Amino acid sequence: MKKVFKRPSIILLIVFIVFSCKEKSTINSQLQHPNLILTKQGVKEIRANLGSIPIFDKTLAKAQTEVDLEIKNGFDVPIPKDYSGGYTHEKHKNNYVLMQKAGVLYQIFNEEKYAIYVKDMLFAYAKMYPTLPIHPKPRSYARGKLFWQCLNDSNWLVYASQAYDCIYDYLTKDERNILETDLFRPFADHISKDNPQFFNRVHNHSTWGNVAVGMIALVMEDDSLLQRALYGIKNIDIDKSLKDNDGGFINKDGKKGFFANLDEPFSPDGYYTEGPYYQRYAMYPFLIFGQALQNKKPDLKVLKHKDGVLLKGIDALLNLSDADGDFFLLNDAQKGMSYFNGSLISAVDIGYHFGGNNPELLSIAKKQDEVVLDDAGLAVALGIKKGKEKPFVKKSIELSDGANGDEGAVGILRSGEMELVFKYTAHGLSHGHYDKLSFALFDEGNEVVQDYGMARFVNIEQKGGGNYLKENTTWAKQSIAHNAIVQNEVSQFHGKYDIGSKHHSNKYIFSTGDSNIQVASAKEENAYPGTKLLRTMVLIKDSDFHNPYVLDIIKVESDNPNQYDLPFYYLGQIMQTNFEYTKYEVPQILGKSDGYQHLYKEASTISKGGNIKLNWLLKNKFYSYTAVTSNGDEVILAKIGANDPEFNLRQEPTLILRKKNIRNTVFASIIESTGVYSPVSELAINSKSNIKSIEIVFNSKDYTAIQIVTNKDKKMVFVISNQNNNKETKHKLIINNNEMSWRGSFTLKEIN
Amino acid sequence: MKKVFKRPSIILLIVFIVFSCKEKSTINSQLQHPNLILTKQGVKEIRANLGSIPIFDKTLAKAQTEVDLEIKNGFDVPIPKDYSGGYTHEKHKNNYVLMQKAGVLYQIFNEEKYAIYVKDMLFAYAKMYPTLPIHPKPRSYARGKLFWQCLNDSNWLVYASQAYDCIYDYLTKDERNILETDLFRPFADHISKDNPQFFNRVHNHSTWGNVAVGMIALVMEDDSLLQRALYGIKNIDIDKSLKDNDGGFINKDGKKGFFANLDEPFSPDGYYTEGPYYQRYAMYPFLIFGQALQNKKPDLKVLKHKDGVLLKGIDALLNLSDADGDFFLLNDAQKGMSYFNGSLISAVDIGYHFGGNNPELLSIAKKQDEVVLDDAGLAVALGIKKGKEKPFVKKSIELSDGANGDEGAVGILRSGEMELVFKYTAHGLSHGHYDKLSFALFDEGNEVVQDYGMARFVNIEQKGGGNYLKENTTWAKQSIAHNAIVQNEVSQFHGKYDIGSKHHSNKYIFSTGDSNIQVASAKEENAYPGTKLLRTMVLIKDSDFHNPYVLDIIKVESDNPNQYDLPFYYLGQIMQTNFEYTKYEVPQILGKSDGYQHLYKEASTISKGGNIKLNWLLKNKFYSYTAVTSNGDEVILAKIGANDPEFNLRQEPTLILRKKNIRNTVFASIIESTGVYSPVSELAINSKSNIKSIEIVFNSKDYTAIQIVTNKDKKMVFVISNQNNNKETKHKLIINNNEMSWRGSFTLKEIN
Repeated sequence: MKKVFKRPSIILLIVFIVFSCKEKSTINSQLQHPNLILTKQGVKEIRANLGSIPIFDKTLAKAQTEVDLEIKNGFDVPIPKDYSGGYTHEKHKNNYVLMQKAGVLYQIFNEEKYAIYVKDMLFAYAKMYPTLPIHPKPRSYARGKLFWQCLNDSNWLVYASQAYDCIYDYLTKDERNILETDLFRPFADHISKDNPQFFNRVHNHSTWGNVAVGMIALVMEDDSLLQRALYGIKNIDIDKSLKDNDGGFINKDGKKGFFANLDEPFSPDGYYTEGPYYQRYAMYPFLIFGQALQNKKPDLKVLKHKDGVLLKGIDALLNLSDADGDFFLLNDAQKGMSYFNGSLISAVDIGYHFGGNNPELLSIAKKQDEVVLDDAGLAVALGIKKGKEKPFVKKSIELSDGANGDEGAVGILRSGEMELVFKYTAHGLSHGHYDKLSFALFDEGNEVVQDYGMARFVNIEQKGGGNYLKENTTWAKQSIAHNAIVQNEVSQFHGKYDIGSKHHSNKYIFSTGDSNIQVASAKEENAYPGTKLLRTMVLIKDSDFHNPYVLDIIKVESDNPNQYDLPFYYLGQIMQTNFEYTKYEVPQILGKSDGYQHLYKEASTISKGGNIKLNWLLKNKFYSYTAVTSNGDEVILAKIGANDPEFNLRQEPTLILRKKNIRNTVFASIIESTGVYSPVSELAINSKSNIKSIEIVFNSKDYTAIQIVTNKDKKMVFVISNQNNNKETKHKLIINNNEMSWRGSFTLKEIN
Repeated sequence: MKKVFKRPSIILLIVFIVFSCKEKSTINSQLQHPNLILTKQGVKEIRANLGSIPIFDKTLAKAQTEVDLEIKNGFDVPIPKDYSGGYTHEKHKNNYVLMQKAGVLYQIFNEEKYAIYVKDMLFAYAKMYPTLPIHPKPRSYARGKLFWQCLNDSNWLVYASQAYDCIYDYLTKDERNILETDLFRPFADHISKDNPQFFNRVHNHSTWGNVAVGMIALVMEDDSLLQRALYGIKNIDIDKSLKDNDGGFINKDGKKGFFANLDEPFSPDGYYTEGPYYQRYAMYPFLIFGQALQNKKPDLKVLKHKDGVLLKGIDALLNLSDADGDFFLLNDAQKGMSYFNGSLISAVDIGYHFGGNNPELLSIAKKQDEVVLDDAGLAVALGIKKGKEKPFVKKSIELSDGANGDEGAVGILRSGEMELVFKYTAHGLSHGHYDKLSFALFDEGNEVVQDYGMARFVNIEQKGGGNYLKENTTWAKQSIAHNAIVQNEVSQFHGKYDIGSKHHSNKYIFSTGDSNIQVASAKEENAYPGTKLLRTMVLIKDSDFHNPYVLDIIKVESDNPNQYDLPFYYLGQIMQTNFEYTKYEVPQILGKSDGYQHLYKEASTISKGGNIKLNWLLKNKFYSYTAVTSNGDEVILAKIGANDPEFNLRQEPTLILRKKNIRNTVFASIIESTGVYSPVSELAINSKSNIKSIEIVFNSKDYTAIQIVTNKDKKMVFVISNQNNNKETKHKLIINNNEMSWRGSFTLKEIN
C-alpha cells in the first residue's frame, strides 16, 4: 500500500466536468454543505474579505503553500504499523490534517484540485480500511485500526469529517455511499461499539471518540449515530473494576457520552479536572463539536450547556497559563505546551465568535498570529482589523474542581511578575498526580520552583515510542516529586488511584481583594489518614522588596508521630547557603520506593534550629528561600536521576526539609525573587535575600502566627485563623505581649 | 566618610558666577578642553545634530536621566573596604562611570550642574585620597587604594581622566592644582611606580594601568608621565620568576609599557592571545587611549601602529562571536559576554570613526542600539541616520596568534547555522587553559558542544567574592574539562604554566574556499612530549542533510603506549544511544587529579568495535554524535560535579571515548544537527542521525582516510595528507581497490 498516488491529467479533466455540473444542481439548496464548521454563508463572507484581513490571509496562504506542495508530492496511505513517532503513525496523522485543510481551501478558493486531493485520499482510505485488522502494536487498552490506539483513530475521524463536509457536494451520491459504507460507518463503529471501554467513559479519550462519531454523524445526518455520540452506547455493561493503561478506571459509575464528558470533568468555573495540558487536548474536540452542533443542531444549545461551561473553559485555560502563554504543570503535562497550540487557536476563535466577541480574546489571537480558516477565524480577523482588541489581563483566580465545583480548586495568585499556582483539587482522573497542596512558582514566565510535569517525550520515538515512560509512574506521579508534604516516605493515598480518586482537598481561604496581601489556603485530610494538613500561601507586595514575595505555611496535625518531608524544587544553581552541610563524595540514593529511589542525596546537614537560607541563580535572576527549622531537622540537598537507566529523567535539584518523629508541626518559609545579573555588564543587583528572619511566634489549634523581620528591621506578623474562615468574624490574640485584633480569617500587621 | 553630599543653593550661585567669568577667558584658546575623547569640535557638531540622530539622542537621554537622578540623590565617596560585589567597591565603580557621563553631559548641554557634580566628587576624592592606606583586602599581588587591586584603581583613573578633561576649563587653575597634586599624580604614581609588578608587564592589567597613567598625562599635558605610560617605568628590575594571583609570570622578558602591550599580545590579525573575553576587557583602554592619542598626539600614529592592529582587533573580536553576538569561550571566559558589552559599543564606534567608516560596523551598532557620547558615536549615529549600514557577515576565518602571527591560531568554520571554533593557539598568558586542539560547536547561536569557560561568577559576591574560584584551577583550566585529547589522565603540559606558556600548536590546513567542504587542521607536538597530535575538523555541506555536519579526525602517534581520553561535552539530554551501557547505582569519581576528580562516571561500556552513536536534545533541537571505536575502547558517560563542596560547578554531561594502552591511533567522529522538536505542536522532525556508518579506511604516516556512509547509502571518502599541506601537490592513493587522486592536502569524494 505504500505507493504514491499521482493522478494523470486526463482524470483531472473528467472530474472537472463532473464538478462543474454538480455545482449548479446544488447551489440553492438550504441543506447544502459545508455546514459543519465552515458554513456556506461563512465561505461567502470570507471570499468577500480576502486580501483585506491580514491574519486570516496569512494563515490561508500558509495552508495553501503547504497543501499545494503536498499535492505536488503526492500522498501515501500506508498499511498501519508503527507507534507514535514512527512513519505510518506520523503519515496518517499528517494526512488527516492535510485533508481538513484541503477541504477548506477547496471551499474558499473553489479550486477543484483541493477537492480531488481530499476525494482521492478518502477513497484510498476507503479501499484500505475494510482490509485492516486491529493495529498490530499491542500496547493500548483500546487498539485502533489506523493507529495503535482508538484515540488517534478518533483524531483522524474528527478531521476527516470536516474534510468530507467540505467536499460533500462535490461528490456524487454513489461516491458518498462508498465512503460512508466502506469507511466512515465501520470506522465510527470500531471506535465506539467495538471498543466500549474506550467510548463509554468519562475521559479525554472518550471525548475524542464521542466527538469523532458525532462529527461524522452530523455530516451524514445520521441521527442514531449522533445519539450514540451524545449519550453513549446504550445497553452495554462495562466491568466497573477495569482500568486503562494509565491506571485509571474505565468506567466506575456508568457515565458516558459527550454530555457526560462535558458535565463531569468540567467544573462550573470551566476547569477540566485532568489539568490544563489535557484540557488543551480535549478543548479541540469539545469546541469543534460545540461549533458543529451550534451550526447544525442549534436547538441543543450546547454552548449554553451547564451555564456555558465550554466557553468558560476557554477563559479558564487562558488563565492557567504563565506570562509567556505556557500552561501551568498540573498532573501529567509536558513542559512548553502553550496557548500557541493549534487547539487553543481554534478555542480562542470559537470563544470570540460564539461567546460574545470578548475583545480581550483578540489580543491572544494577535499573539497567536494565526486564526482558524472558518467563520470563527474570520470574525477574529475582522475584529483585529478593526482594532477592537484589548489586553487579556490575567488576574489572581480560583478555579473550582469537580462537576459541581465542590471538589477543591486551583488557586492562582498573581502580583507583579510573580505567578503562584497552588493545587488543592480532586485527583484528575487517570492523569492525576499524588500531590495534594503542592505548588509551583513562576517569575516573568519562567518556572522558578517547579512542578516536574510528566516523564514522557511526546512523539519522540527514540524515548519509549514517544509514550509515557515507566518513570512517569515510579517518579513523576509520586508525592516526593512535588512541592508537597510526604509522610513517612510514602506517597499520598499510598500512590493508589483507587484511593486517591475518591478524595479531594478543600478550599479554605482565597482572598485577593487586597493586592498587597493575597492569600490562598486549603486543607487536606485524606492523603494520610489521621493527619490533617493546612497549607496557606501568601503573596505579599511590600515596597521594600524588589518583587512580591511568597510566605508559605503548612500546619500539620497528626494522631501519631511521623516523619514529614517537604521538598522544594528550585531550578537553577546554588549561589550560597547560610548553613554548613556535608557534601558526600558520591551521592547516596535517598530511598527505596515511592519516588525516593529516583533521588540522589548529594549533601545534608542536621539543623540546630533557626532559619536556613538558600540563595540561587536561574536565568540571570537571583532567588532566596528562607525556612524555619527546629533543632534536629534534616536538610537534604538532592538531585533527580537515580535508578534511571536510560537517562529519562531531568537531573534537577531539590532541597528537602525533613522533620522526624513528630505529631504536630508547622513548616514556614519565604521565597523571594530579589534581583538580576547581567553577564554583559557583569553587574549583580540585589543578589541577596531581604529577609533577616522568619519565625513561628504562635501556634495553636485556632491560630498560627509567623513573624517576618526584614533587613531593614521592619517586623511584620501574619496570623491565620485555622478553624474559622468566615470573613466577618472578629479575632483577638496576644502574641509576645502584643495584642492583635482583626476581622476575617487572616491578618498581616507591622509591629514594633 | 560615608555621608551624602548635597550642595546648598548659595554655593551653587557662587560657582555659577565663577563659571560665567571663566567661560569667556578660555573660549578662543587653541588648547581648550575637552580634547581627549570628546573634542571641542565634536561637541559643536553634536549640538548641531541633537534631536535628529535617534540612536545618539536615545543614549544621551538615558545618560541624562541616570545622572540627573544621581545628582538628586547625592553621591557617596566611602572609605574603601570591600572586595568586588561589596558596597564600597561597587560605589567607587559607579562613581567613575557617573563622573565620566556627567562630564559629557556638561559639555553637550552646557548645564553647570553636571560640572558641579564632577567637581564635587573629584574634590571628595582629592580630600580622601591622601589619607588612604593600601586597600585593606589582601588578596591581590598589586593592591590598590580605592579598590582591592590596582586594576580597578586604573579603571577609575581612565574614566576620571575623561571627566576631568570635560570640566578642565570649568575649574580654576588653583582647583586644578589641588586635584592634580592631591589626587591625580599620587594616584598615577601608586598604580605605576609603587606597583611596578603591575605596571611593567605585558598583561591586560598593565594595559589598564598604562592607559590610566597615559590618559591623565594627556589631560595634564605631563610628558614625563606620558612617556611612563607609553614605554613603562625605566630602570626598574623585576624578579623574572615572580607570578601573579592567576599563576602567570609577572614579567619574564622585561617588556613593558603601552606599546609593548600592543605589540606582544596582539597577533597581526588582531587576535589577543588571552582570548575574546579578555580582549573585550582590554579593548576599551586600548581604544580609548588610541582615540585620545589620535586627538592629542596624532604624530604617534597609534592607530596605524603594527599595520593598524588596534582596528583589526575590533574586526577580529566581532568575528569571535556567535550568531547572537556572544563571544566564543577561549581560555578564562564567562558565558554570556557579548558585543553588547559597553567596551564593544565604544570599540565599534571608534572602529567606524577612525577606521574608514566601514558600513558593516553600523549594523552592529544598530543592534547594540547605543553609541558612545562623543565624536565617534556621533559619526555612527549620522551613518545610521543616513541609512549607510550593511550587514556584518561573519565568514569562516583563521586568526593567527602570537606577536608575529606564528604561534598557532584560532580557526572558525561557519556554514549555515553552524559555527565551529577550533583552538590551536599559544597558551594565552595567565588566563590560558590547557586545551590544545580543543573545539566548541554552535548552532544558531546556541553552544551545542561546549567549552566550559571559567569557574567564576564575576561580581557575584556570594560566590567567592566574585573572584576566580579554586575550581578554575582544579577543573576549568585542566585538559579533561575540554574537548581535547588527554593522555594518561594527566593534563597537557602537566597543567603547568611555566611549560605551557613556552609552546603553541601549529596551523596545518585552513581551507574555506569551497563552501561545501571547509577544513581546519592543526598539529600539537609539545603537549605530551613524544606524542604527536594532528586534529582535522571538517564542516561539510551536503544537500541530503538538514544542516552542515562536522567530521572530526584526530591522528595520534606516540613513542610509547598510552591511554588517550577524548571528552565530548555535549549539552542537553540523552535521547538514545546505539550501545548498551551499565548505569551505576551511584556514580563513581573518575579520577584523582588533573580535573578527573571533578567528574562523576555515571555509566560506561566496553566497545566491541564499530560505531557508537549518541542522540540528544538541546533547546528543542536534535543532535547526533557518531564515533568510530575499536574493540576494547571504553565509553564513559560522565557528569561534572564531583569534589565540588560548594556547588560551584555546573553539573553538565560529557561522553568520554577512552583508548587504552596504544601508541598510534585515530579518533574519528561526526556531529550532526538533525532536526527540531516543538513542544507546542509536539512534532519531532528529523530526530535521528543521517549517518549509517563512519569508518577509518586508511591510515598511514602519510594519509588518513575516513569513509562516511549515509542512510541513503551514499558513500564518501575524506582523505587528508598528514605530512604535506601544499595546496598544489598531487596525490594518488588506493583505498579498498578504489584509486583516488587529487591535488592539495585533502579531498572528499563520493565513491561507489
